[in-house]
Amino acid sequence: MAADPRFFGPPRPQSLGAIAALLGVVLPEGADGAMVFTGTATLRAATADQISFIESRRYLPALRDTAAGAVFCLPEQAALAPPHCVALAMAAPQLAFARVAALFHPVPPPRPGIHPTAVIDPTAEIGAECEIGPYAVVGEGARIGDGSLLGAHAAIGPWCVFGRGCRILTHASASHTLAGDGVVLHPGARVGQEGFGLVFTAEGRFETAPQLGRVLLGDRVEVGANACIDRGGQQDTVIGAGSRIDNLVQVAHNVTMGKGCVIVGQAGIAGSTTLGDYVTLAGQVGVAGHLNLGSKVRVGAQAGVMSDVPAGQDVLGSPAWPARDTLRAFARLRQLGQPTAKKA
Amino acid sequence: MAADPRFFGPPRPQSLGAIAALLGVVLPEGADGAMVFTGTATLRAATADQISFIESRRYLPALRDTAAGAVFCLPEQAALAPPHCVALAMAAPQLAFARVAALFHPVPPPRPGIHPTAVIDPTAEIGAECEIGPYAVVGEGARIGDGSLLGAHAAIGPWCVFGRGCRILTHASASHTLAGDGVVLHPGARVGQEGFGLVFTAEGRFETAPQLGRVLLGDRVEVGANACIDRGGQQDTVIGAGSRIDNLVQVAHNVTMGKGCVIVGQAGIAGSTTLGDYVTLAGQVGVAGHLNLGSKVRVGAQAGVMSDVPAGQDVLGSPAWPARDTLRAFARLRQLGQPTAKKA
Amino acid sequence: MAADPRFFGPPRPQSLGAIAALLGVVLPEGADGAMVFTGTATLRAATADQISFIESRRYLPALRDTAAGAVFCLPEQAALAPPHCVALAMAAPQLAFARVAALFHPVPPPRPGIHPTAVIDPTAEIGAECEIGPYAVVGEGARIGDGSLLGAHAAIGPWCVFGRGCRILTHASASHTLAGDGVVLHPGARVGQEGFGLVFTAEGRFETAPQLGRVLLGDRVEVGANACIDRGGQQDTVIGAGSRIDNLVQVAHNVTMGKGCVIVGQAGIAGSTTLGDYVTLAGQVGVAGHLNLGSKVRVGAQAGVMSDVPAGQDVLGSPAWPARDTLRAFARLRQLGQPTAKKA
Repeated sequence: MAADPRFFGPPRPQSLGAIAALLGVVLPEGADGAMVFTGTATLRAATADQISFIESRRYLPALRDTAAGAVFCLPEQAALAPPHCVALAMAAPQLAFARVAALFHPVPPPRPGIHPTAVIDPTAEIGAECEIGPYAVVGEGARIGDGSLLGAHAAIGPWCVFGRGCRILTHASASHTLAGDGVVLHPGARVGQEGFGLVFTAEGRFETAPQLGRVLLGDRVEVGANACIDRGGQQDTVIGAGSRIDNLVQVAHNVTMGKGCVIVGQAGIAGSTTLGDYVTLAGQVGVAGHLNLGSKVRVGAQAGVMSDVPAGQDVLGSPAWPARDTLRAFARLRQLGQPTAKKA
Repeated sequence: MAADPRFFGPPRPQSLGAIAALLGVVLPEGADGAMVFTGTATLRAATADQISFIESRRYLPALRDTAAGAVFCLPEQAALAPPHCVALAMAAPQLAFARVAALFHPVPPPRPGIHPTAVIDPTAEIGAECEIGPYAVVGEGARIGDGSLLGAHAAIGPWCVFGRGCRILTHASASHTLAGDGVVLHPGARVGQEGFGLVFTAEGRFETAPQLGRVLLGDRVEVGANACIDRGGQQDTVIGAGSRIDNLVQVAHNVTMGKGCVIVGQAGIAGSTTLGDYVTLAGQVGVAGHLNLGSKVRVGAQAGVMSDVPAGQDVLGSPAWPARDTLRAFARLRQLGQPTAKKA
Repeated sequence: MAADPRFFGPPRPQSLGAIAALLGVVLPEGADGAMVFTGTATLRAATADQISFIESRRYLPALRDTAAGAVFCLPEQAALAPPHCVALAMAAPQLAFARVAALFHPVPPPRPGIHPTAVIDPTAEIGAECEIGPYAVVGEGARIGDGSLLGAHAAIGPWCVFGRGCRILTHASASHTLAGDGVVLHPGARVGQEGFGLVFTAEGRFETAPQLGRVLLGDRVEVGANACIDRGGQQDTVIGAGSRIDNLVQVAHNVTMGKGCVIVGQAGIAGSTTLGDYVTLAGQVGVAGHLNLGSKVRVGAQAGVMSDVPAGQDVLGSPAWPARDTLRAFARLRQLGQPTAKKA
């Protein structure tokens, strides 16, 4: 399936030779570098003027049947491509595919201009070449860097700072936030609001603790649709450069996250927890408060992390244990669930 | 409790005879078809001019004590209604109750007109008899079918298409979306934004894969408050006709869902997973990516589906197994949790 | 770290004597009641003119190294503070800290005025001294009490009532809602929309049940960012006074919650369930529909409550059992996950 030109514009055609050169791969013997491609597609949907890719063995049947004109594949898969399909062998086909897809359909730059309905405080600074959509609101003293985009109804609170090339999309809001360059807030993302700061009394009641921190977003951080990042209470909530936060994720006050973390949809991180660099939390993971997860920790889907995790460890389960232990425990539990299991 | 007329307007009175005729049931001997009712209510709250219902045995005590003037019930429950309460016996009392409640308080039609603050691109097409609320935004080339409603601050991106009789409610947003008739986006729903498309590099870093697909919503699809449906990466995200998605649900890129699916609050479906028709996911369920769930699969609350599920199967637990196995495993696990359990 | 004056304004300096008097504690011998403090901070970040606190033993090393000029602590911790740090011993240091932090940075009152872009229906009533932000929308017949704040893009539906001193923040929406005084809707909160009211037919299809109830919010209820509270179907959804609902929580139709409940991020409560007073649901908890949880029940993180829970009980796990049973079961399960475990 070609990208719908209504939404993505016409593709920018690319020659096979130019693509191979970009990727640093050699064309197989007999391949015509002058072949022109108009886009990318999945193996099943691709046509003769489109490029596809394969990496997982799961899709080998689709490779044999593909109508694609070319395919990026692992070296051992190249011989399985049908004759009409040029197989470009490489170590990372999916990554190459993503890069080449962006050649056909680069992210369109902002269309500079401020919609007449936008409410920009006179003390706010909007950089050069920004696109500010209808009903966007920018508060007192806020600064938006060059080449940034504010979607319809985006709301930036007083004194917030966003760097260059940021995209704050439809209905996203930020307050008490200082952000680097290339930051993206997807639609409905909420950044910088009050954290859930309750202090319980001896009688089991509670009072509100003032939330006097900020949110600091490193360069290229992305915050998914309707995800929430609360500002800190007595310190800042910090998201390291390049970290990606998916839709509907909750990041509570005082969380500190290193660079390059990947937090998948509906995961939640409770207050004052620290994540190192390149930590991955799969979907619906929960991490309790006041914990430390070392760099490159990976947490499996729906796991519940209740204690510190050393760097590099994989954990699974709720409560989360080292992955091997949890997999063994699940296997034994499953045996217990068989009708013939002896009573434990 | 009668519906608050401030919010729902005055009820449209209905005679018992007309109600019985609509439902195709016979009035019990001695019942007066000319009795007039003004609304519906629960057994405990209903008054003499209101109708109630019972289906679950759990509410039998409430039936005995009800002040309702009439009740829809299962045949075997009819004799338990108090003398002042006309018992209409039928196979599906709750369904009848829902239908009759809608007679008293039909969904009000849109009030045609475009609020002067709405920003409608001159190339967009708005159908006949539409109601467009304050600060709604409709982008270039978008089309909204006849009789549709856009709530306050609703935002429809360029080239989106919505059919007839759609309701896009307060603060909902859509982009890259083609929708059928009667589609409802509840407040804050997000449809068509970029999926979480990361490709990891050999060094454990990642790059963004362009998200070049769309969202296709079949007729009568509903998307709950603050729920998210991402657009596809290299294919479309597809939601079949009549499927209902509850609040805060996450549907990732490339998901394909058949018709009549029910996805309960806070469930999440990871990328490229396929659901057949009439699949039910209970609350907080997670389904991993690249899986197939057959038609009429039912997944219990909080389950985590990590592998394919054949059509018609019920699964429970995290990881999810066939319901009987999981229930047995939980029972054995619970025995292990007793103080007197022998060490396993 | 001092609160960033751009976001929180300059602190209001306080003397040590005034602080001690407010808290009802006696200054230790030799302490100078005339010392002036300018704010609060964590033990690690505090400087000589700031106050910190300690309660958990976890932070004892930080106490020994703190540069804070004063610290609130438990009596047995006082001797461990360094010489330059005045230790004020008390029973509830964290609570005192929260109260004193608010002295330095009180929540700023609304700045009375209605932004010229707000759309207020002529029949709506806005109380005295309210601040109504840009693009706020207030529908027909709605009433907003004195001293309330509506943030940018806040949307209040027809006939809603909010009491005095409410804060309805950026992009929050309410419909079919009657709220007391001091209620807070955080950014993107959704209150009063249609519940997920489906009635299944004999054929496995479903129809929509009209949602004819309201949402009643008691005084001082807070609803977190992007959290959802659906209105009732045939009764009201009721949230008792002082209850706090964190970000991304789902409260389904007909739920009744007592006073002082604490519902932590991403928890969900299914339809028609009743919670007593002072119930706590930790993060990502799910509670099934039509259940009763008694007062002071506490549910541990990620637990799944599938049956009634008597007042005062702590439960854990999915399915949730009494906490002791679950902890024992988890311990035995973990043993089963060890490589040396005998086959069960």
